[in-house]
Amino acid sequence: MSNFKPPYIGAAFYPEVWDKSETAKDIARMNAAGINMVRLGEYAWSYLEPKEGLYNFKWLHEVIAELENNKIAITLCTPTAAPPEWLIAGYPEVLAVREDKEQCNTDIKRSYCPNSPLYRAFSEKITGLLVKEFSRYKAIVAWQIDNEFGSEFTSCRCTACRTGFQKYLQKKYKTLKNLNAVWGMGRWNQSYNYFERIPLPDKSSVNQPALYYNYKEFISLSFAGFAGIQEKIIRKGSSVSVTTNGMPSLHKIDYQELFKNLDFPTLDLYISEKYLWKYIYEFDWMRPFKNKPYWIMETPSTWAGRLVPDRSFINKSCLRAKMWLAYALGGETVSFWHWRAHWSGQESERISVPRFCGEPTLAEKSLRVVIEELNKTKELLTKTKVKKPESALHLSYQAMWIFDYGVVAGIKYDDELTQFYKVFLDQNIPRDIIFTEADPSGYKTVFSPFLPVINGVLLEKMKDFILKGGTWIVGPLSGFRSAANTAHNESEPGLLEDLFKIQIRHRFLLTGDDSEPVYINWGAMGKVRCRKFAVSIELKGHGKVLAKYSDGPGAGMNAIVEVPFGKGKVVLLGTLPAYEKLKIWINEIAGADKCKIVKTGAEGIVIAERVDAAGKSIAFIIVEHAGKGGLVTLTKSLKNAFTGKKLKKNLKLAPYDVIVLV
Amino acid sequence: MSNFKPPYIGAAFYPEVWDKSETAKDIARMNAAGINMVRLGEYAWSYLEPKEGLYNFKWLHEVIAELENNKIAITLCTPTAAPPEWLIAGYPEVLAVREDKEQCNTDIKRSYCPNSPLYRAFSEKITGLLVKEFSRYKAIVAWQIDNEFGSEFTSCRCTACRTGFQKYLQKKYKTLKNLNAVWGMGRWNQSYNYFERIPLPDKSSVNQPALYYNYKEFISLSFAGFAGIQEKIIRKGSSVSVTTNGMPSLHKIDYQELFKNLDFPTLDLYISEKYLWKYIYEFDWMRPFKNKPYWIMETPSTWAGRLVPDRSFINKSCLRAKMWLAYALGGETVSFWHWRAHWSGQESERISVPRFCGEPTLAEKSLRVVIEELNKTKELLTKTKVKKPESALHLSYQAMWIFDYGVVAGIKYDDELTQFYKVFLDQNIPRDIIFTEADPSGYKTVFSPFLPVINGVLLEKMKDFILKGGTWIVGPLSGFRSAANTAHNESEPGLLEDLFKIQIRHRFLLTGDDSEPVYINWGAMGKVRCRKFAVSIELKGHGKVLAKYSDGPGAGMNAIVEVPFGKGKVVLLGTLPAYEKLKIWINEIAGADKCKIVKTGAEGIVIAERVDAAGKSIAFIIVEHAGKGGLVTLTKSLKNAFTGKKLKKNLKLAPYDVIVLV
Amino acid sequence: MSNFKPPYIGAAFYPEVWDKSETAKDIARMNAAGINMVRLGEYAWSYLEPKEGLYNFKWLHEVIAELENNKIAITLCTPTAAPPEWLIAGYPEVLAVREDKEQCNTDIKRSYCPNSPLYRAFSEKITGLLVKEFSRYKAIVAWQIDNEFGSEFTSCRCTACRTGFQKYLQKKYKTLKNLNAVWGMGRWNQSYNYFERIPLPDKSSVNQPALYYNYKEFISLSFAGFAGIQEKIIRKGSSVSVTTNGMPSLHKIDYQELFKNLDFPTLDLYISEKYLWKYIYEFDWMRPFKNKPYWIMETPSTWAGRLVPDRSFINKSCLRAKMWLAYALGGETVSFWHWRAHWSGQESERISVPRFCGEPTLAEKSLRVVIEELNKTKELLTKTKVKKPESALHLSYQAMWIFDYGVVAGIKYDDELTQFYKVFLDQNIPRDIIFTEADPSGYKTVFSPFLPVINGVLLEKMKDFILKGGTWIVGPLSGFRSAANTAHNESEPGLLEDLFKIQIRHRFLLTGDDSEPVYINWGAMGKVRCRKFAVSIELKGHGKVLAKYSDGPGAGMNAIVEVPFGKGKVVLLGTLPAYEKLKIWINEIAGADKCKIVKTGAEGIVIAERVDAAGKSIAFIIVEHAGKGGLVTLTKSLKNAFTGKKLKKNLKLAPYDVIVLV
Repeated sequence: MSNFKPPYIGAAFYPEVWDKSETAKDIARMNAAGINMVRLGEYAWSYLEPKEGLYNFKWLHEVIAELENNKIAITLCTPTAAPPEWLIAGYPEVLAVREDKEQCNTDIKRSYCPNSPLYRAFSEKITGLLVKEFSRYKAIVAWQIDNEFGSEFTSCRCTACRTGFQKYLQKKYKTLKNLNAVWGMGRWNQSYNYFERIPLPDKSSVNQPALYYNYKEFISLSFAGFAGIQEKIIRKGSSVSVTTNGMPSLHKIDYQELFKNLDFPTLDLYISEKYLWKYIYEFDWMRPFKNKPYWIMETPSTWAGRLVPDRSFINKSCLRAKMWLAYALGGETVSFWHWRAHWSGQESERISVPRFCGEPTLAEKSLRVVIEELNKTKELLTKTKVKKPESALHLSYQAMWIFDYGVVAGIKYDDELTQFYKVFLDQNIPRDIIFTEADPSGYKTVFSPFLPVINGVLLEKMKDFILKGGTWIVGPLSGFRSAANTAHNESEPGLLEDLFKIQIRHRFLLTGDDSEPVYINWGAMGKVRCRKFAVSIELKGHGKVLAKYSDGPGAGMNAIVEVPFGKGKVVLLGTLPAYEKLKIWINEIAGADKCKIVKTGAEGIVIAERVDAAGKSIAFIIVEHAGKGGLVTLTKSLKNAFTGKKLKKNLKLAPYDVIVLV
Repeated sequence: MSNFKPPYIGAAFYPEVWDKSETAKDIARMNAAGINMVRLGEYAWSYLEPKEGLYNFKWLHEVIAELENNKIAITLCTPTAAPPEWLIAGYPEVLAVREDKEQCNTDIKRSYCPNSPLYRAFSEKITGLLVKEFSRYKAIVAWQIDNEFGSEFTSCRCTACRTGFQKYLQKKYKTLKNLNAVWGMGRWNQSYNYFERIPLPDKSSVNQPALYYNYKEFISLSFAGFAGIQEKIIRKGSSVSVTTNGMPSLHKIDYQELFKNLDFPTLDLYISEKYLWKYIYEFDWMRPFKNKPYWIMETPSTWAGRLVPDRSFINKSCLRAKMWLAYALGGETVSFWHWRAHWSGQESERISVPRFCGEPTLAEKSLRVVIEELNKTKELLTKTKVKKPESALHLSYQAMWIFDYGVVAGIKYDDELTQFYKVFLDQNIPRDIIFTEADPSGYKTVFSPFLPVINGVLLEKMKDFILKGGTWIVGPLSGFRSAANTAHNESEPGLLEDLFKIQIRHRFLLTGDDSEPVYINWGAMGKVRCRKFAVSIELKGHGKVLAKYSDGPGAGMNAIVEVPFGKGKVVLLGTLPAYEKLKIWINEIAGADKCKIVKTGAEGIVIAERVDAAGKSIAFIIVEHAGKGGLVTLTKSLKNAFTGKKLKKNLKLAPYDVIVLV
Repeated sequence: MSNFKPPYIGAAFYPEVWDKSETAKDIARMNAAGINMVRLGEYAWSYLEPKEGLYNFKWLHEVIAELENNKIAITLCTPTAAPPEWLIAGYPEVLAVREDKEQCNTDIKRSYCPNSPLYRAFSEKITGLLVKEFSRYKAIVAWQIDNEFGSEFTSCRCTACRTGFQKYLQKKYKTLKNLNAVWGMGRWNQSYNYFERIPLPDKSSVNQPALYYNYKEFISLSFAGFAGIQEKIIRKGSSVSVTTNGMPSLHKIDYQELFKNLDFPTLDLYISEKYLWKYIYEFDWMRPFKNKPYWIMETPSTWAGRLVPDRSFINKSCLRAKMWLAYALGGETVSFWHWRAHWSGQESERISVPRFCGEPTLAEKSLRVVIEELNKTKELLTKTKVKKPESALHLSYQAMWIFDYGVVAGIKYDDELTQFYKVFLDQNIPRDIIFTEADPSGYKTVFSPFLPVINGVLLEKMKDFILKGGTWIVGPLSGFRSAANTAHNESEPGLLEDLFKIQIRHRFLLTGDDSEPVYINWGAMGKVRCRKFAVSIELKGHGKVLAKYSDGPGAGMNAIVEVPFGKGKVVLLGTLPAYEKLKIWINEIAGADKCKIVKTGAEGIVIAERVDAAGKSIAFIIVEHAGKGGLVTLTKSLKNAFTGKKLKKNLKLAPYDVIVLV
C-alpha cells in the first residue's frame, strides 16, 4: 500500500529472537498480510551489544535493508526498556527499588531507575550509536524512545531518586521556609529543617498530601527527563519524527510532559472491544495535542489467539471498527502488537498477527478488508482532517494525582472524566480533549469538570478566552485545591473568587448510597438529583442563578450560577446533576456544532466530519462501535466511498459497521 | 455560657498554625458560636521547642490569656503525639518499627515507639516544662496527655520493644519453666530456653496464642506506661483533672489500664449518624467507669463540610441528637474536632466548626439551638445524674484479644458484644457496661456474654455478688480459655466447674450457613434457633435446666442451666439463642428496672432517667436516635423543660427529636 | 481388633506433652474407643534430645512398650517437622527465608529450609538414632518421615536455596546456552551469562515462566530429597513400611517424587463433610499409585468438638460414611488427628477423639459402630481388592504448575480436573487416577484433560498404548506447552502433530461471561455450549470429525476429532463441551465398565466392586456420600454382610448409609 507513507498498518517485529532464516519468510508474510510498517529493535539491546562495548549491528542492517527492499516502513526503537543482563548484573545500582525497598527482580523488563545517572549514560550511548548507524535508511519513518514509560513502576526508592527528589524540591521551592509554607507543614510539626531529610512517600503511610503530589510530579518528570536525553541525541542525527508509546489505562505519568518535545503522540491501546468508545476518548485528546496525526503503537490484532480471555476481539467485525475509528478520528497508524507470537517469556501466547508457527490468525481476513478500504480512501484520508470542534474538555494530570491521593472519597478521576466526556460522545457533539496547558482560543466553550487545581496561568488564559466571548463551564469539584495539594488558604474556588465574584460557601456531602438524596431545581428540567458532591455558591457580584438546591440542609442556596464576563461568561457547577439532565443541558450549550449533513440518534454511532484544507466538509466517516447497530439520516445526497454507490436518505448500520460517505 | 464550668461545648484549637492575627478573630468567632472550651497545644511541640532545648512559650501564654479573658475554658494538651522533625531526624531510634520491619515514615504523626527510653525522656521534659509554665491559669480545666494512643500503631518491632517484652515476660512469669508450662509450649517443641530468644509476634505467621496475647497486653501496658509518666509529672504541678482521649472504634489497647490513674474517660467519636446508638454504647461504659461525667473529646461538628462523604451528619437534626445523647447519659462535654479546618496536611478539609476561611459552617445553626437548650437546663443537668441501673454487662480487653486471635472463627468481639448490648438498649432496659475488674455490687444482674477468660479474681468477686443475692448470666462462649490464651487444662468452664458444679461437655458446632440448624426447646418460647456456637452443660450438683437441645447430635442435652448459689444464682448459656427470643428472656430478667414514668415501645428512643442526690427521679431526657420517630407515653404529668409547656400523655417524637421532661 | 494388623483405626498420640501419669490412662481409653494404631513421636524432638547431643529415649521406650502390651500398633514418626528451640536458636541459618526475605518466625512448626545442609545433617542423625533405638519393637508397623511437607512453605529464599537452584539448573541444562534456548530467554534480553546470576522467583514480579516452573520443580525435589535422606537411613535399620503424610488440599509439591521410594501413599484429609466425594477423588489416585492399600494419616474424628466451625462433621452419620469410603476404595487405615486435644498452642481446641480432659467426644459412638462392622468384614476386606477399572485419568504436577502460573486465565487445575473426574464418579463409571509417569497398559481408555505438557516419554508410552488398542482422549487444553512452560516453538499440539497428523489451528477465546457463547454441533447431542476455551483442529491425515463449531469466528471448523492409530485411536477435544453432554459422551465411551450386579442412578452413591485374587467379584461396598439418599438395584441375590440378611432387589439407602453386599 505504501511507499513508506501513511496510512500505516503496522506490527512489532522481533526478528532477533527468531532464527535468521525466518526473517525473509516473515517479511513475505507481512507483504501478504498487508503490513506496511514495522517496529524494530524494541528489546534488542543484548543483540546489538552482547557484551559491554562489543557491538553487533550487522543483523539489524540486514533486516532493515530487507524491509526497505520490500517497501515496508520502519519505526526504529531504542532498546532501553529492557536492559541486557550484563548491564543489570554488572551495575546493579541501575535497578529500580520497589516500594517494599527491594531491588527489582532481574527477570522482568523496565527494571531500571529512570534517574540512575549510570543507566542514563548507557542509554544515551546506545541511542547515539543507533542513530549514527541507522538513520540513513529511508524506510525509517520514525523513532520510538524506550517503551511504555511508567507501565511497570511509577515509583522508585533508590538513593538517586531520593536525592533527586530532594534536589527537585530545592530547585522548585528555593527555600525550606517556602516549601514548609506552601505545603502547610505546620500541622503535626512536619516542617522540615533540612532538604536532605525529606523522605519519599511510603506505601504503608497516609502520606503528607503535598509530598505525595510532588513525588508524582517528580517521577513523571524523571521519565520525561530520561526520554529527553534520547530525544536530543536522535534529533542530532535524524530528521524523521521522534515519539514514544504511552499506555493510557495506566496514565500514571504526565504525558503532556513526556511528549512535550516529541513529534506526535502514540498510545498502546489494550481496551476490551466491549468499550470501543474508550478508544475514541483517547483519540480525542491525541488529535488536538500536537495537531498532527496520532498513532496507535500497539493494539491486539485479533479476536482470537491468546490464552488469556480478556481484551479480546470476539466479534470479527470489531477489529475493522477499531481500526477505522483510529483513522476516522485523526490517526494515521494502527500498529499491532505483535507480529509473530512469542513462544516463550512472560508474554508468550499473546495475540499476534501470525501465530508462532507463522501461520496466519483469523484476524488477517479483517485486515484484508480494511486494507482494501484504505486503498480506496487513502487520498481522502490524507487530504482531509477532522473538523475542529467548538467544544473542548480539560484533561489534567494534576487533577489525577489529587484525586488519586483520595482527597475526595469515591472519586476516580478517570472514571468521572470519561463519564462526563461520554455525554458529548453519546450525542455526537464534536469535542476535543485538551490539556489545561493548551491554548483554548478557537473553541467556543471549554468544560473543566473535576479540575481541582486552577492556577494563575490557567486562569489568565481562560480570562482572555472569556473576555473574547468564550464560555467556560467550571465544575463540579473544580478549583478547590492548590498545586501543592492543599485546600485554598482562604476560600473556594481559589483565584476564581476575586475574578468572578463568586464564592463556594457550604458543602452538602452526599452519601454514596441513596439514603439522603439531594436535588436541585434546574429550570425547565425541573427537580434533578445531585450526585457525588454538592456545594453552595454565593454571587458576590452580578450573575444569574441557573439552579438552586430544593431541599436538604442547603435548600434555597445556589447550585449552578452563570457570571457574565467581558464578551463571554463563566458557569460554575456546584454539583454533578444526574447525567440524563446534564445531557440535555450540554446539548443546549454545545449541540449546535453537531454535523448538519449526517445525523443519528444512536449512542453507539460516531460521525467524523472531515474537512479539506479550506475547511470544507467533504467526507463523513461513520462507525458503529457499540455493537448495537442503528439508524443514520443524510440531509444531502452522498455516496459510499468503498462501493461508489449512492446512498439513501436513511441508512441502517449493522453492529460494528463502517461507512465512508463522500 | 460558662465561667470555666461545664457543660462544655468545645473545639480543638490550633492557633499556632495560623497567622498570629487570626487568634483574636477566632476567639471572637468562638464566642459567637457558643464554644466555651478549647483544646490547645495538641501538636504544638515544634512551636514550643523549635530546636532542641530552645523554648518559646510566649505565644501560648498570649493565647491562653486571651482565651481566659474571653471566659473560654482550656484543656491543655501535651504535644507528644507528633514529635518535632528535629527530634525524629536527630534521634531516629525513637521511631516505631512497623510490622514489615521498616521504621515509620517521618511524614506522619504518632510515629514514635512508646517504649523508647529516649522518647520517654523527651516527653517527660516537655510535659514538665508545660506544667511549670502554664498550670497557673485558672482557665485550664483539664490536661490531655498525648492523643489517641494506639490509633496509628498497636505494635512495634524495635529493639526496645523486643527486650521490653522479654523483660515483661520475665517479670510476669518469673521463670522460663513457669512460662513454658503456663503457655503450654510443649507442642511443636516451642519451649524457650532463654528469655532473650522469645520473639515478637509476626504478621506473616500464625503466632503462638499465648505469645500473641501477652504481646497485646504488653503493648497496651506500654502505652499506659508512657501516659503514666506524663500523668505523674502533671499531678506534681497541677490540681486540675488529667485525662487522655481514647478512640473506641479501634479499641486495640486496654482503656482500663490507660485510664487507671486518670480522672475521667474521654473518647474521640467518629461514628456515622446512621448508628447513633453506638454512641450510647460508649456512654454506657464511660459513665460508670469513674463515676464522673465523661467527655467526648473529638467528634465531627457538622453534617456538611468535609470532602470525604462518610461519618457525616447529613440530617441537620442529627447533630443536636448526638450532643444531647452525650449530656443526657452522663457526659459534660462535647468537643468538636476541630475548630477551624486545616487547609493542608493529611487532615485538610476535614469537618470543622468554621471553614478554613473562618466563615461558619451550617452546623452553627444546630449549635445555637443546643446552647439555648443547655442554658435552660444547665442546672438540672449538673444537679442530677443518670439513675444507677440494676443490670450490668461485662466488657473485657482480654476477651477482645482472644477473639482477635481467631480462636473461634466468625466471632468479632465488638460486634457480638454490641449486638448483645442492643437487646437492652432496644427495650430501654437501664444498663451499665462495666469492666471485669469493676465492683459488681449494687447491680442486681450481671451479664457476661463472650467472656472467654474468667480468672480467679473475677470469680471471687462474682461469688460474693451471687452469695449476696445477685444473678450472674454467663455465656455464651464464656469461661473456656485461660488468661494465657490456652484452653483449660482440665475441663470447661474452668474454675466455674468446681464452684457451681457444672461442666461443659460436648460441643455442637454450628455452620455459618443455614445447612444444619440447631434448636433448643426454651420454655414458653418454644423451639428457638441457636446461633454461632452450642455446647452441652452437665449439672453435677443441683440446678434447673432452662433449655435443652431439641435435635442434632446433642438432642436432649442441656443448653441453658440455672444453678442456685447463696442468695443468688448463676445462669449458664451454652449457646446464643436467636435474638428475638433472647430479648424476651432478658426482659423477663431485667425489664422490671425500666422507667415507670416515661415509656416507649420504639426501639430508637432512649430514655435517660435523671435522679437528684437523694436518688429521686426529677427529669427524663428522651432522644430519638434512629431517625424514625416514635411514640412515648407519660404516666405522670410532666413539662417540657425547653418550652415550659405541659405535655400530653402521648407524645409523638419526630426523627432525632430531643425532649427534656421535668 | 488387631494383632498389629490392618485394618487400622488410628490416632496421633503425643504422650510427651502430657503428664506421665496420663499415658496409661490414655492407652486404656484407646482400648475402650477401639483405636488399634497410634502415630508417635511426630513433634517430640526436644523430648528426645533436650539439648544438642543429650538424648532421652527412656520415656519413648516406656510408651512403646505399654502400647505393645496393649496390642496397639505404632507408626513411629521422625520428629523433624518441628525443630527444637536449641537448634533454631543455635543455628538460625537452618530457618527458611520467606518470600518477603525475612527468616521464619521461631514460634511455628516447619520453619526449616529443606535444603539447609546443616538441618539435613541434624535430621539424618536423629533419624538414625531413632531407628537404632526403636526398630526392634514388633508393634511398629510403619515409619512416617517428618510431617506434611510443603504445608507451611513451598518456597525459601535462603542462600542454600538460591545456590541449590542454580546448581540444579546447571545439572539439568548443562550449559547456559542450552538453558537460554530452551527457556526462550531472547525476549527482553533475559538470557543469562552466568548460572550464579539466575535469581529466585519473586512474589512482586510477573516471573519468567520457565524460571517459575523450574523453581516449583526444584523446591518439590528439595522436599523429596530431604525425605529421601531419612528414608535411606530407616531402610538400613528397619524392615517395616516407610511413608510420609501428604496434604492434598495444598498439592503444591510433587507427590509422585515425594513418594517415589516410599511404600505406600498417605494423606491428611481435612475436607468438609459437604464434599465427601473429594475424599473419593483422593482415594482414586492413591489406590493405583503403589498398588498397595493407602492410609488416611490424619482426618478429623468427629462432627463436634472444635472451636472453628469448618471442616466439621455435623451429621453423625458422616463419620461412618467417610471411614467406610476409605476402606471400601482400597485403604486400610483411617487415623484421626488427634487423640487427645491440645489445650495450648496454635492447634489447641482442634477436633480430637477425647477432649483435653480425656472425656470422650460424641464421635466415639460412630467409632464403635464402624469397629463392629469392620470386625464382621475384616477378612473380606483384606482378601479382596477393588476391581481394576477400564478407564484412567491423568494427573500431572507439571500441569498444576503451568496453570498456577496463570498461563490460561480462569483455569484452576484442581477445580477443572476434579470437575472432569466427577463426570465418571457421578455415573459410577469405575476409574483410576494415574500419574502421567505411570504405565497406562491394562486400561482401555485414558483421559488426559487439562494436560498442557505432553513430553516425548509420555507420548511414546501412549503411542504403545494406542497401538495395542487403547483409546486416548486428549484435551481440552492439552499439549500446548513445553516442559519449560513455553509454547511449542513450532505448532500445537507439539509432538502430537507429527504422530497423529493433527494440528491446532485457530483459537476462539471464550469470555468468562455469557456475552459471546460458542457452540459445537456434536452428533446426536446436537448443539452444545463450549466452555473455557476453544480451538480448531485440522486433520492432516485421515480421521473423523466428531464435532464442528456451529457459529462464531470458527464456524465450520473442527472441534473434536478422532484419529485411528494402530489398533486404537486418539480423540482430541478442542474445547470443553458443557458437562451435561460430556457426561453422555463419556458414558458412551467408558460406561460399559460399570458394575453389572449393583446399579444406581443416584449421583451420591458410590459402588466399590471388590474382587478376590482370581478376579472374581465377591463383594460390593456401597456408600451414600451426598447426604441425599437414593435407590440401588441388585441384579443378583445378595446379603448384607453386617446383618447377614438377604436383601431385596431394590434397596433404599438413607443419607450417608453404608452397606456391604456379599
